[in-house]
Amino acid sequence: MADEVVLLDFWPSPFGMRLRIALAEKSVKYEYKEQDLFNKSPLLLQMNPVNKQIPVLIHNGKPVCESLIAVQYVDEVWNHKSPLLPSDPYQRAQAKFWADFVDKKIYDSSKRVWATKGEGQEAAEKEFIGHLKLLEEQLGDKPYFGGDNLGFVDVALVLFYCWFATCEKFGNLNIEAECPKFIAWAKRCMQTESVSKSLADPQKVIGFVHELRKNYFGLD
Amino acid sequence: MADEVVLLDFWPSPFGMRLRIALAEKSVKYEYKEQDLFNKSPLLLQMNPVNKQIPVLIHNGKPVCESLIAVQYVDEVWNHKSPLLPSDPYQRAQAKFWADFVDKKIYDSSKRVWATKGEGQEAAEKEFIGHLKLLEEQLGDKPYFGGDNLGFVDVALVLFYCWFATCEKFGNLNIEAECPKFIAWAKRCMQTESVSKSLADPQKVIGFVHELRKNYFGLD
Repeated sequence: MADEVVLLDFWPSPFGMRLRIALAEKSVKYEYKEQDLFNKSPLLLQMNPVNKQIPVLIHNGKPVCESLIAVQYVDEVWNHKSPLLPSDPYQRAQAKFWADFVDKKIYDSSKRVWATKGEGQEAAEKEFIGHLKLLEEQLGDKPYFGGDNLGFVDVALVLFYCWFATCEKFGNLNIEAECPKFIAWAKRCMQTESVSKSLADPQKVIGFVHELRKNYFGLD
Repeated sequence: MADEVVLLDFWPSPFGMRLRIALAEKSVKYEYKEQDLFNKSPLLLQMNPVNKQIPVLIHNGKPVCESLIAVQYVDEVWNHKSPLLPSDPYQRAQAKFWADFVDKKIYDSSKRVWATKGEGQEAAEKEFIGHLKLLEEQLGDKPYFGGDNLGFVDVALVLFYCWFATCEKFGNLNIEAECPKFIAWAKRCMQTESVSKSLADPQKVIGFVHELRKNYFGLD
């Protein structure tokens, strides 16, 4: 039986972009089904009844939820090329630790940069830049977090790059001036087709967030 | 070289208990180093400089942080007995999903049961019981979440059992009346030595939380 792969996703979602990159790295063909998060489809509610969130990877009818778990699943099932997690248990644990850090720290602080104002926003900006500097340290002199090739942490992290213009537009930040090594890494990732074709257009993200700020956060 | 294994832990920590159970399941001998979380040791700060939290598993001098990641590490390194994660990728993804659910939902709602009061507490109690019922559904008729033997979700979850008396003491709950299948499962787990010797004494947890409520949450 040929694999039937479906991705329930929402175009500006950093979490969805992880799956798009991972599936592209593995050359897996799939059907992309854009979801309306303001009016959730019966399919989404059926496939992720617990969290009711995208992305959901549906493989031969069975759903895998939570983006980092689904990327690991993709890595295990399509293990013929582009390994994302290292095979050494210690290196695997380290990669999982930094991907978890991205989920817990980068997502939260970057969101507060564009979804708050005043002192809260200033604090978020400092935190966000601090987190990026910590990641720069981790990267060190390697081309990618995965070493010579794109790995699990790269896939978990690089998608925030297309949200940086949004953070700079609505916050008071110059990320490249503060974290030049981070930006150089992101640009390096963008030269990979799996990344460049999976990330949203930064200007479209700004437009999306502009509406969100107005309609949901009472800003602008 | 013989393995040198150290666990930086704090006795009432549910997250620390996960490592105690996993290491016991694998018959790994280790040095337990109790940490003072109100006055963090140089060793803890050196081994987990990012999150500064316990548990930290130190294996031959190298730290592994974040309890679910460290349990996976233990499962991969000591793979000669008691596999915790299934080998099938889909079953692995499902186990990781439910362990993640425990981290995101059970920890948070159970903490709000004993650390809040009034409407917030009532809402937390409803949420908490709802989450336990969802887990009961997942368990179904199996003896353990892992099937016939203790698995990853069992190790991630069972430690909350020794916090249930605390939830009942400070909240308005009768967990056994609401979730009898859950309690039967927890009691089944407690018949396993790796679990029974790793969990804290529920009465001591009550005493610990009583002090926390008074000194940190302004309750009582």
